Order: sequence, then structure tokens, then C-alpha cells
Amino acid sequence: MTNGFPLDSVGLVVPQRMAFEQSLTLASGALLPRYELVFETYGELNAARDNAVLICHALSGDHHAAGYHVPDEQRPGWWDNLIGPGRPLDTRRFFVVCPNNLGGCAGSTGPLSVDPATGQPYGPDFPIVTVGDWVQTQARLADRLGIERWAAVMGGSLGGMQALQWTVDFPDRVRHALIIAAAPSLTTQNIAFNEVARHAIRSDPDFHGGRYYEQGVVPATGLRLARMLGHITYLSDDVLMARFGRELRDGKLNFGFGVEFEIESYLRHQGESFVKRFDANTYLLMTKSLDYFDPAAHAPEHSLSKALHATNAEFLVVSFSSDWRFSPARSREIVRALLDADRDVSYVEIESEQGHDSFLLDVPLYHRVLRTYFDKIAASGASA
Amino acid sequence: MTNGFPLDSVGLVVPQRMAFEQSLTLASGALLPRYELVFETYGELNAARDNAVLICHALSGDHHAAGYHVPDEQRPGWWDNLIGPGRPLDTRRFFVVCPNNLGGCAGSTGPLSVDPATGQPYGPDFPIVTVGDWVQTQARLADRLGIERWAAVMGGSLGGMQALQWTVDFPDRVRHALIIAAAPSLTTQNIAFNEVARHAIRSDPDFHGGRYYEQGVVPATGLRLARMLGHITYLSDDVLMARFGRELRDGKLNFGFGVEFEIESYLRHQGESFVKRFDANTYLLMTKSLDYFDPAAHAPEHSLSKALHATNAEFLVVSFSSDWRFSPARSREIVRALLDADRDVSYVEIESEQGHDSFLLDVPLYHRVLRTYFDKIAASGASA
Repeated sequence: MTNGFPLDSVGLVVPQRMAFEQSLTLASGALLPRYELVFETYGELNAARDNAVLICHALSGDHHAAGYHVPDEQRPGWWDNLIGPGRPLDTRRFFVVCPNNLGGCAGSTGPLSVDPATGQPYGPDFPIVTVGDWVQTQARLADRLGIERWAAVMGGSLGGMQALQWTVDFPDRVRHALIIAAAPSLTTQNIAFNEVARHAIRSDPDFHGGRYYEQGVVPATGLRLARMLGHITYLSDDVLMARFGRELRDGKLNFGFGVEFEIESYLRHQGESFVKRFDANTYLLMTKSLDYFDPAAHAPEHSLSKALHATNAEFLVVSFSSDWRFSPARSREIVRALLDADRDVSYVEIESEQGHDSFLLDVPLYHRVLRTYFDKIAASGASA
Repeated sequence: MTNGFPLDSVGLVVPQRMAFEQSLTLASGALLPRYELVFETYGELNAARDNAVLICHALSGDHHAAGYHVPDEQRPGWWDNLIGPGRPLDTRRFFVVCPNNLGGCAGSTGPLSVDPATGQPYGPDFPIVTVGDWVQTQARLADRLGIERWAAVMGGSLGGMQALQWTVDFPDRVRHALIIAAAPSLTTQNIAFNEVARHAIRSDPDFHGGRYYEQGVVPATGLRLARMLGHITYLSDDVLMARFGRELRDGKLNFGFGVEFEIESYLRHQGESFVKRFDANTYLLMTKSLDYFDPAAHAPEHSLSKALHATNAEFLVVSFSSDWRFSPARSREIVRALLDADRDVSYVEIESEQGHDSFLLDVPLYHRVLRTYFDKIAASGASA
């Protein structure tokens, strides 16, 4: 332990903020006159500037991937088990960068920010952003940090989609792409779940067309429902059975509508705590970005393989056996397309009962695979 | 065609109503002083009274299983493809009875009915009913119709659970049980989806604690969400992909929150039309009845096999390959328990891409199985 933190923790971290005064035209055609990104970094950029790893966050993630903001922070960053001195993504060798995405609610410019055109929060006027838009903003961040080429771009779920998009949009700026628990596009069912979540938020009377900040309320009911629903899709049926089964909170049926089964209590708690930390307008934007993601869309014959033909990265694709949100079959679509495009790809399907959430967990084989892969990256170029 | 109906249709049907003035004590301990059931019958009860088939409906079903209420009714009863002269459940041979369940909203006593104690609609005061309670009411209906023993009790989904419960509660009153697309209990995930649906309804400001009738409103937003969510679980991912894919309504992304993908339009439509025909308090009751269903609960060691040991029926269990709400694995649990209990059981797993909804559809092999099974029932006893 150093200062109370484990030796292999990055310890205390201070988020950084960068302003981009050059306007940005988004995929929608909307123009942002300026924006800011908050981000964290762990480790040191080496003299050759070739040891930088970009971490892209998922739907409800943020820039706080590792370490602690305050000594007694209840939980460290969301990917803390992965990142640190001696951890699979070893910060003694790599310089790790994790930004909060544009449109987010953790500090980067988004619906909560003031629209310079009106002097009021953007709220529902914040434009819909795409995975491609995020990659553009991350590339500008890389420029400013003096990173010409990432040693790796890495993410799980929606974060993995960003890693994939990077290889398409900036083929020469990514040496390795780690695409974990992701998919080349959403299925109809994925979109359907997102639509129910959006409907829950937008039909909440406290949503006020997205201008709820001005009313001093939040669409808590809708956001809570969206999160409860999301949680069901993040966990496998098996892990829910193992963790909660049909356990009754009071040991007997109460024939009422209070909490009876333990799973009900869990879902309500998850919904409650999410409402306290996340913004509903951002949630809407993130689900749209997921729906829209489809890097094959502009390729001939809508072919993912053709879309990936001009990429130059080496790829690691990882899926989890019990993930039914983005199942192994979806990862294999990416792998097949890469093979068809004659790209360099490794693929591992990890046995895990934890469902989609596995990508956040310290599943031993998964972490060994990542450690080995980062060792390979370090050996083949980047070193501190 | 006769009178404009196909020759193998039961044609025009008139729902019947029966009042039960004897009080009923429910599993919860609550006492209903009296109740009424609406039901439909098709075909004729034979002189031996041994050709009666009870149809049990599912979550959002009702007593209108076959035929037409008016000549130009847009759609016939919900299991019309199965029931009629010459159809798999042949009404020239069988006398078919289908009641609306207690607690329902299609005419049987339920939340919409007047509570004799208050002179006001029961609303949220209508007691939670269980599958076992339904079986009791159906047994009383059988008594009044002069049916000592059903040739068959049959249902899909929650209806199949009633058929299973019948064999446990009245082993000598069921010759055959047809249990289709059902499960011996809900999984944690099933309960979780129900809880989200209930939460959507109960947190709708128009719910008014269930007393929305008196306010002249309905919790439309919550009920719509519940139905949208339900629909996702009724259909397989594959069939959603085949029917809607990622098709865009306007052929392009609009970067807004109106309908973009066709699936969004479908879900909204399903939600809308459900709100017009279904009562939210009944929906809450039905989901609770599903959650509570667990015929093994009172058996030694919570053993389904032991719970089924005293049954006397012959069983047909049917599942559908793409059903992820009540997967084939759940049907196999029932089959295994029946085999362990040394009961007579046939099991068929039907290949179908249509998901849970398959049980309502004219899947050719499925209907052939049912036709064959009913032929066997007819040959072994019941005949007109």
C-alpha cells in the first residue's frame, strides 16, 4: 500500500480539461462552435510518444477509468482492475488516456453545458453524436497530446465500437485495436430495447421535452426504468439465477406490490443510484449513437469486410460466452470480416457466466489474455 | 364459406356469463364474496360428458379464443387457427370451453368490477390471484357445466401453467394436459422483466395508486411501455431481424427522436393498441400470478417431480426452438420431472423462428402435432 492505495493502483488521479476552440461539424451536419473534453491519464508518455493507449468508454461510463479522485472514494475508476502499475494494462509501460465522450454528463461538453448561442444549457438541443464524431474529437485530443499514433485503442461494448471506428477512420493512427464485448452494429432487438428506454425517459412528465433543468426536476422515473431494463440485458439469465434466484426478501409471498423477490430490490436500487449520477439527455444521446453505429453502412454492398479493408491495425477481439446483449456471434462477425479483409486478428471467446458485464470484471482468463496482448504490444514497439 | 365465414370456422359466437354466489378464498387469504366468469364454448358437450376441452388463456388473452363476435370482426379469436370444425382441435368432436380469468378485464370479475363492499370498482383492491386460484374457479365452472373430467386442459405460456396446475390440484379431473411454451416457474430474468413492466405502470402519474378509473384517466404511458417491453420478449432476435432488420422508415437517419427504425414504429403501434384494449390493474395482477407460479414450492425438497407424482393425466409438452421467454430448456424441466415421477408424457420441440409467439401461430408441424394428439384423445374415449 502507498498512501493507503494498493501498490498496483494508479492511486490519486486528477481529471484534466481541454478546450477545443475550433468548430466541429458532426455527422448530422450540426456544427459545434467549440467544446471541451475532460479526461484522465495514467502513466507517462515516453520520449518516442509511441506508448499511448486510448480507452473508450461505454454507454454509462466516463473518463474515470482507474484510480481514485479522493483517498476515501468508495469505488475506484470503472476499469481499475485492468489499469495500473503491474496490472494487465501496465502504467509503468503505457500512457493511458481516457476521455469523457462528447455529449456526456461527466464534464465534457454535452446537454448539461451552456449553449453559447443561447446562454442556456443545451438540453435537448445538443446534437445527436455518432461513434464517428467521438473518434474525431478523440483524434483532436491525440493531436493536442502529441500522440501521432496510438499503441492501442481499446474499449468494451460501445467503447469497442469506437476502437473499431478508429481503425476505419484513422488507419495509420492505430497500431492495435482491442474490441471487447462489442458488435459491428445493433440487432433489431438491441434497437428495440433502446427504444423502450428512450420512450420511458421521453414520456416521463418530468422530462419537459428535455428542458427539465429549467424546471428544477429530472425525469427520474423514466431514467430509472431505462437503467433497470439495461441491467437485465447486461447480466445473463444464469448469473441472475445464481445471484438472486427466486429468493423472497421476506421469505414468503406478501401478495402485494412492494419488493417481494430479491431481484426486484436489486433492480430498484440500480435504478435509484443511476438517477443520482447520470443525465437523461445524455442517456438518450448514447442510445442513439449505439443505434446508428454501422461502419459497413458506407462500404460497397454494405460489406463490413470492405469497410475494414483499408485498416492497418492489428486486432484483438474478445467476446464472452454468456453475453446476450452483444453475443459471441456478433464478435465473430467482426472477426470474419477482418479475415475476409486479410487483416491481422486474434480472437478469444471467454467462458463467463456474467453476461455482457464480464468486460468490466476480473475474469481470470480474460485478464490473462489482455496482459499477454499488452506484453506483445510492448515487445513490438512501445516501451517506457 | 357459411354466412361469410370459412367452413372450418366456428363462426359467430356469443360469450356467456355465469355468476358464482358462493364465496371463494384465494391463496392470499383474501375472500371474494361472489364473482362472475365470462366464457365462450364451441362445439357440443356429448351425452357422456367426456369430450370437454378447457382452454386457459395467457397474460393478455381472454375468453374469445375462436370465431367472431360480429360478422365483420377484424380478427377472429386468438386461437382461431387451432379451433373449429376440421381444425386441429375439432369442434365436431370436442366441446371447447374458454373462460376469461378471474382478475381479467374482458368481462370476468376483476379490478374493473364493482366491489360489493364499497360500491366502487375494485381497482387496486382486487386481490392478487394465483394460477391455483384460477384453477379453482375453472373447476367450479366445470361443475356448473356438468363436466366431471376434462378430456383435456390446454394452454400456452401462462395458459400452459394453468394446465399443469390443474393436473396437480385435480388429478382425477384431467385426462390430458397440453402444456405449450410454458415453464415450471419464472426465472430471475422473467421476474425482472415483469418488475420493470410493473414499475412502468405504477410510476405513471396517471396510475393514481390504481384508482385511475375515478380520475377518468388510464396510465397509458406505463401500460404502453409494459407492452413494448413484453413484445420484445415474445419475439426472437432472429424474427425481429428478418421482419424489421435495421430498416429506416425514411431511408436515412434523421438525427432526431422521432421514429427512425421500423422496429420503433412497430413497438409504438403495439403499445398504443394495447392501451386501448387492456386494463393496467389486470396487467399487474397477471404478472404477479406469473411470478408466483411454482407448483414445486410446497413439494418435499421443492421437487417438481414430487409435486407431479400424484397427477393422473397424460401430458403433451411443446416448446419452440427460438422461444427465449420460456425456452425449450424450461419445457424439458417439466418433461424430466414427469419422467422422474413415472408419468406418461410426450414432448415435442418445434423448430420455429417466431419466438414465444409461436404458440399462437399456425406453425405447420406444431399444428400437425396437436391434430394428431387430439385424434389420439378422441380415439381413446371422447367422441361426439
